[in-house]
Amino acid sequence: MYQMPAEMRACIEDCLRCHSTCLGMAMTHCLEQGGKHVEPQHFRLMLACAEMCQTAANFMLIGTPHHRTTCGACAQICEDCAKSCEAVGGMQECVEACRRCAESCRRMAA
Amino acid sequence: MYQMPAEMRACIEDCLRCHSTCLGMAMTHCLEQGGKHVEPQHFRLMLACAEMCQTAANFMLIGTPHHRTTCGACAQICEDCAKSCEAVGGMQECVEACRRCAESCRRMAA
Amino acid sequence: MYQMPAEMRACIEDCLRCHSTCLGMAMTHCLEQGGKHVEPQHFRLMLACAEMCQTAANFMLIGTPHHRTTCGACAQICEDCAKSCEAVGGMQECVEACRRCAESCRRMAA
Amino acid sequence: MYQMPAEMRACIEDCLRCHSTCLGMAMTHCLEQGGKHVEPQHFRLMLACAEMCQTAANFMLIGTPHHRTTCGACAQICEDCAKSCEAVGGMQECVEACRRCAESCRRMAA
Repeated sequence: MYQMPAEMRACIEDCLRCHSTCLGMAMTHCLEQGGKHVEPQHFRLMLACAEMCQTAANFMLIGTPHHRTTCGACAQICEDCAKSCEAVGGMQECVEACRRCAESCRRMAA
Repeated sequence: MYQMPAEMRACIEDCLRCHSTCLGMAMTHCLEQGGKHVEPQHFRLMLACAEMCQTAANFMLIGTPHHRTTCGACAQICEDCAKSCEAVGGMQECVEACRRCAESCRRMAA
Repeated sequence: MYQMPAEMRACIEDCLRCHSTCLGMAMTHCLEQGGKHVEPQHFRLMLACAEMCQTAANFMLIGTPHHRTTCGACAQICEDCAKSCEAVGGMQECVEACRRCAESCRRMAA
Repeated sequence: MYQMPAEMRACIEDCLRCHSTCLGMAMTHCLEQGGKHVEPQHFRLMLACAEMCQTAANFMLIGTPHHRTTCGACAQICEDCAKSCEAVGGMQECVEACRRCAESCRRMAA
């Protein structure tokens, strides 16, 4: 059976968790709360972050060295999404998933 | 914070694990082994299964009642992928992830 | 070069157009209009429809016979999304893309 | 109805065409030809390119300014995929779709 470095396996987990948290919270918490939670700039960033995390995970699973590029992009977007969630407030679960994923992706991109 | 039924949360986990296992094994183990591992019918099923699992998970995260439709489709495809992996041999990790995801999705589709 | 039946090629085009229209309109028109446009049931259906169209297209591109299953699911979801867009109003572009994709997918699923 | 700049609309089209061409050719032409067509490095790049094009298109549809980041990553990966397809040979359709998408994405990233 194939072996993947433990650090990469952990990064995939962090990306999938951040994807699930951002998509799940956007589509339940944010849509149901309304107001600043569905302000276009914030809401778009939540969905873009979910999409980028999914792609970063898929690149690592595909096994291409271009995962450095996608992990680098993912780290930036997660960092911005964490800031937007902090500004909106009441989204600590999302802030933490984004920060953890950003940190993990930065290491993989290095 | 939003609450999702425990059974749905577990099904999302099973879908994401099956997605990662199918995509990861297709792109490393299968491509590297070659031969029957890259026989088109088997290889296409591996990638289709990975894609369907991702979509089934996303439907549950989106929170739409149409997740029943996608979980039903996912259960069928995972079942077929498990059989194809058994026939090829040496892919027990994938067989188990597919069977577990099929069972979980069947419950969500019911 | 590989040859794909003309009807399948047309169905892929219809799926991609419906995906782009639903995702694009949800994230610009709906988010900016607010009100009933971001009512959770409608908005979730728009994103679920976009996701299903993408997956139905990908199954045809992958070349697996399971595209019948995903095209069947896609036809159902597009039909429901068309109805939801008609009920909300002012979304004729989306209604038409969904109806056309549903018709195309029904033929591929048969 | 929302208005998107013509150049962005064209870039989305180029990304979707490149996605379809890379995924479609990998899963039919490459898998059926075998040999160097399923050499891991080439095959992984084909699938990674398809995934990145899909995500770059989705970012533009989502309407987030982070599309610059994903278009920049997409341009790099398409350029490398074009080179790999040229080296393998007999994949002119894919080379052209990748080059066109790379050029389009570079303009959007600027």
